[in-house]
Amino acid sequence: MSHTPILDTINSPTDLRKLSVEQLETLAAEIRETIIQTVSRTGGHLAPCLGVVELTLAIHYVFDTPEDKLVWDVGHQAYAHKLITGRREQFHTLRQYQGMSGFPKRAESPYDAFDTGHSSTSISASLGIATGKDLKGDPHKSIAVIGDGSMTGGMAFEALNQAGHLHKNLIVILNDNEMSISPNVGALSSFLSRKLTSKTAVRLKKEMEHFLKSFSNVGENILSVLKKSEESLKGFFTPGMLFEALKFEYIGPLPGHKLENLIEALRNVRDFSTGPTLIHVLTTKGKGYEPAEKNPGDFHGVGPFCIETGLPLPSPPAPPSYTKIFGETLVQIAEQDPRVVAITAAMPAGTGLTDFSQRFPERFFDVGIAEQHAVTYAAGMATEGLLPVVAIYSTFFQRALDQIIHDVCLPNLPVTLAIDRGGLVGDDGPTHHGVFDLSFLRFIPNLVIMAPKDENELRHMLHTAILHPGPAAVRYPRGNGEGVAMDKGLQRIPLGTGELLREGKDLLLLPIGNRVPAALEAANGLKKLGLEAAVINPRFVRPLDDALICEWASRTGKVITIEDNVKKGGFGSAILELFAQRNLWGIQTKVLGLPDKFMEHGTQAQLRHKANIDTPAIIVEALALCGKQH
Amino acid sequence: MSHTPILDTINSPTDLRKLSVEQLETLAAEIRETIIQTVSRTGGHLAPCLGVVELTLAIHYVFDTPEDKLVWDVGHQAYAHKLITGRREQFHTLRQYQGMSGFPKRAESPYDAFDTGHSSTSISASLGIATGKDLKGDPHKSIAVIGDGSMTGGMAFEALNQAGHLHKNLIVILNDNEMSISPNVGALSSFLSRKLTSKTAVRLKKEMEHFLKSFSNVGENILSVLKKSEESLKGFFTPGMLFEALKFEYIGPLPGHKLENLIEALRNVRDFSTGPTLIHVLTTKGKGYEPAEKNPGDFHGVGPFCIETGLPLPSPPAPPSYTKIFGETLVQIAEQDPRVVAITAAMPAGTGLTDFSQRFPERFFDVGIAEQHAVTYAAGMATEGLLPVVAIYSTFFQRALDQIIHDVCLPNLPVTLAIDRGGLVGDDGPTHHGVFDLSFLRFIPNLVIMAPKDENELRHMLHTAILHPGPAAVRYPRGNGEGVAMDKGLQRIPLGTGELLREGKDLLLLPIGNRVPAALEAANGLKKLGLEAAVINPRFVRPLDDALICEWASRTGKVITIEDNVKKGGFGSAILELFAQRNLWGIQTKVLGLPDKFMEHGTQAQLRHKANIDTPAIIVEALALCGKQH
Repeated sequence: MSHTPILDTINSPTDLRKLSVEQLETLAAEIRETIIQTVSRTGGHLAPCLGVVELTLAIHYVFDTPEDKLVWDVGHQAYAHKLITGRREQFHTLRQYQGMSGFPKRAESPYDAFDTGHSSTSISASLGIATGKDLKGDPHKSIAVIGDGSMTGGMAFEALNQAGHLHKNLIVILNDNEMSISPNVGALSSFLSRKLTSKTAVRLKKEMEHFLKSFSNVGENILSVLKKSEESLKGFFTPGMLFEALKFEYIGPLPGHKLENLIEALRNVRDFSTGPTLIHVLTTKGKGYEPAEKNPGDFHGVGPFCIETGLPLPSPPAPPSYTKIFGETLVQIAEQDPRVVAITAAMPAGTGLTDFSQRFPERFFDVGIAEQHAVTYAAGMATEGLLPVVAIYSTFFQRALDQIIHDVCLPNLPVTLAIDRGGLVGDDGPTHHGVFDLSFLRFIPNLVIMAPKDENELRHMLHTAILHPGPAAVRYPRGNGEGVAMDKGLQRIPLGTGELLREGKDLLLLPIGNRVPAALEAANGLKKLGLEAAVINPRFVRPLDDALICEWASRTGKVITIEDNVKKGGFGSAILELFAQRNLWGIQTKVLGLPDKFMEHGTQAQLRHKANIDTPAIIVEALALCGKQH
Repeated sequence: MSHTPILDTINSPTDLRKLSVEQLETLAAEIRETIIQTVSRTGGHLAPCLGVVELTLAIHYVFDTPEDKLVWDVGHQAYAHKLITGRREQFHTLRQYQGMSGFPKRAESPYDAFDTGHSSTSISASLGIATGKDLKGDPHKSIAVIGDGSMTGGMAFEALNQAGHLHKNLIVILNDNEMSISPNVGALSSFLSRKLTSKTAVRLKKEMEHFLKSFSNVGENILSVLKKSEESLKGFFTPGMLFEALKFEYIGPLPGHKLENLIEALRNVRDFSTGPTLIHVLTTKGKGYEPAEKNPGDFHGVGPFCIETGLPLPSPPAPPSYTKIFGETLVQIAEQDPRVVAITAAMPAGTGLTDFSQRFPERFFDVGIAEQHAVTYAAGMATEGLLPVVAIYSTFFQRALDQIIHDVCLPNLPVTLAIDRGGLVGDDGPTHHGVFDLSFLRFIPNLVIMAPKDENELRHMLHTAILHPGPAAVRYPRGNGEGVAMDKGLQRIPLGTGELLREGKDLLLLPIGNRVPAALEAANGLKKLGLEAAVINPRFVRPLDDALICEWASRTGKVITIEDNVKKGGFGSAILELFAQRNLWGIQTKVLGLPDKFMEHGTQAQLRHKANIDTPAIIVEALALCGKQH
């Protein structure tokens, strides 16, 4: 017998709408069970998804999806949404290669109104949808669901500001679980969570009376009265007033796991609201699975785990991750140099900074989901003689391009960009691959860019970047290191120097970063096939080691560059530019890198293979370039 | 006798601090006179600078600059600041080649605490400075001056959010002139300008009494009482409460042209505030110069003008600007196609959309200084079948890279990016040059990129972009067109097709966009010198016309690419990639484009000459490539 008898009958929200509220409650339990079972095998975003099961059901129950458009901010909370919108059967393929995406995708379902993955886009998109419907005379609704963490992103505010002004028929549901991925930061957060107690109410009354008394003095200057009133009303500020100031109608806070209340409130909004409305819903991250409720941070994004214990499934021993080595090295450097400070954008654990934050709480800054501010904030600190290290995932650094150019590199300030998860990231797919960074950073004057061949080199590069008297970026991949031995000390790598790893007369392999080990392996393979490949680890994407690279390129006359980045504008492109600049036109150069398309999700190995940047692909390309048949 | 006897004695703020308030008032008048006189000759940001003369004097009078750090948001209001911080003598060189910058620059003066140019960075930078001072135990102050327009930028909100949380000693001065460059938009703006009248006060009292009555019903549920209270307090919300909610101390609003009041308030803050403080100052843009007060929008950034009339100095007749042709063409297209909508980020006039906004007010959207939101908002509209055109300056599109990648190109939505002021912009200098866009857009899958050779081609390209069923960008320069004849109709240019403009056997010139006329001129010059240069107008940066380009490259064996963009990762780099991909290694290719440094300010012609991308430079390069001495 099925464990999920009701869910088994839900092929679309139309089926859902036939159920009673009691049946919906049972369905919620079945969905939770299905999510926990599946994610325990596939990994995924468990805690966010468990937190919005009732909210998801209530929205689809009340609104006429997919005609009413529903946008999930970030989209990592959409598993329940996927389960009830015709994707129940594929759910077991979640995040697997060629299986279902972990995020909403318009190409996957008409119920996914907008592709999401990055934070804080939902209000902009939903406002665009509402504007479109308005111009077309389409009365259907536009709904954004956004977490309190995503609200710290500046573009959410930009969108709220315009939405209040435009007065379109827009519904924003604030999913307030008092944390984003890590416990939330910022004044907005502590303000949203300002729970109203009876004590507050009493104080309120007193302050109001005091306030009114000030009015009795008729002769008093009105401005000064109002000034006083502001003083006395300080503590009276509620979340509703903030949104009402931005011209939203505010409803809430509502209990987020009570289906009856949610449905009633949503029905009211559906039937009566005409302008922008914000519904404030209080949810519990990880709801219904005790280990996740207790440690929602640990269960934000998880690998396979044991349902009974909540512990990760045992995995074969593996070298430490680049992220971990980064975090350890930064602590080591900060111990010696009090000028070193660390900045993260709502990802202290993800970027390996948890230890740093505990060791140096006064030198650690989590700015919230605010990459633009993070970079300029670091630039400000740098002008005061500090040595800031900004650790952000490659894909999220896309948010800060202008600040890197304008606030860091133009004034040539000593800020270190620690670019985690550069290259293909795997399961999270196209929204999260860090495969553009070499292309969007390589052209910025004054910026030094390094990429380590292994976790040991990462340590020296971080040290080098921090001591460089201008801006420097270190780009390293998601996942485990190579398991190499670690040097004891930290060495400063001379600017723009690569290293010749292997001599060879037939061709030159020029891999960058994590492609170095693959190229060395390919060189070994080629030797067996009769080809002697030289291998250079360039270490620097800029400035390049012109002399070393041109020397070996000229000697061999044949070059293959390999990178875990798109080919366009990337490292290989830099090599082509170098050769053209030096009039080295005769050199036969092939660029291996990611193709000119968005790569899907899958394991890193699967994707690297597909993109022809792994060892076999290098061997095939080398044989072809040298005119040998494989 | 000098017209500015007091200003003549001010060599630094130290001299300023010896003056009486009365003398300061005279000084303010002298400064206004100097700014008006100079800008009437040099051009520049007149209205913003006139609005903050008293504020500038008051800040330097009260605070211990340059030890107390002062950051001007955007920086286009800093002329008075420059005049009293040792740069009086150079002021006449404002915005001239090798003269004084129009923006604050750390390299120019220790009084310029942070380089600015783009909007909304000042709170981030000042918070970084305050954090640095705090860690160093330096008691000096950190002050940001930010306009109400800049407050609509998301990163200002990101910074406020963290500042309230961190509780550093930060002073934010909100320079509220109720407009940014154009009349301000958004809910925040109308909220800030909510002036408190006596009528409001009376209504307030009534509402308060009503509110208190609800408390007398003791049995009532507290939550519902509070809900009601929120309702009744809606109209009572004041700017101070917003900032206090974000944990700032709020002071104001203050009259921004009364030196005595400003000085008193700043002294109080200096001596007594310990945490983040926001001072709300009301100023008049263009203050003291009647034409600018009346039309502050027209006097935001001006060219040389007649002081008596306020009218621009007569200039020789010139072809219409690219911006103007863009705006006219968009109106023409929108007349035919109701799906076309236009979006600007606080630059309706600057991007040529004034006519459009009047003709189609319901299809025109000014989102404020909010480039991130602008792009995703357009993406949302595109999902509803609209054809949005987002017109933003190249340099400000840097703010929206992630949204272009993640929200437009990944879901392959038909959004048109109208990239105005691509290439060197001239007087505004390095913060405003649009010289990176080809590099930061060229690698994005699905995106079509075009650049017109003249204003007539711009029209066809805009038409082509709008009808393309996916994302497309059209990049065009600042300034006047080529004065070419205009075709009557609009033609769709087949995707990825260039045009051969001239045959030639000796070499191929491959210019993009505004470099096409320069290359044609160079080809004429080369003919006289005995060289036959073929010239192709590629039209598309992506997809390239592979066949046409490779054919002529193979025929001639020599190629020079020319672009008004950095060489790294730009159009020339795309050509090198193409040749490598096609195994066309023997072709001798030279890339002309901007060097790997930030270009200074000056006229476009001066800068293009310096960067070797003008006609003489092409001729010199061609002669060298073909082994001829000039």
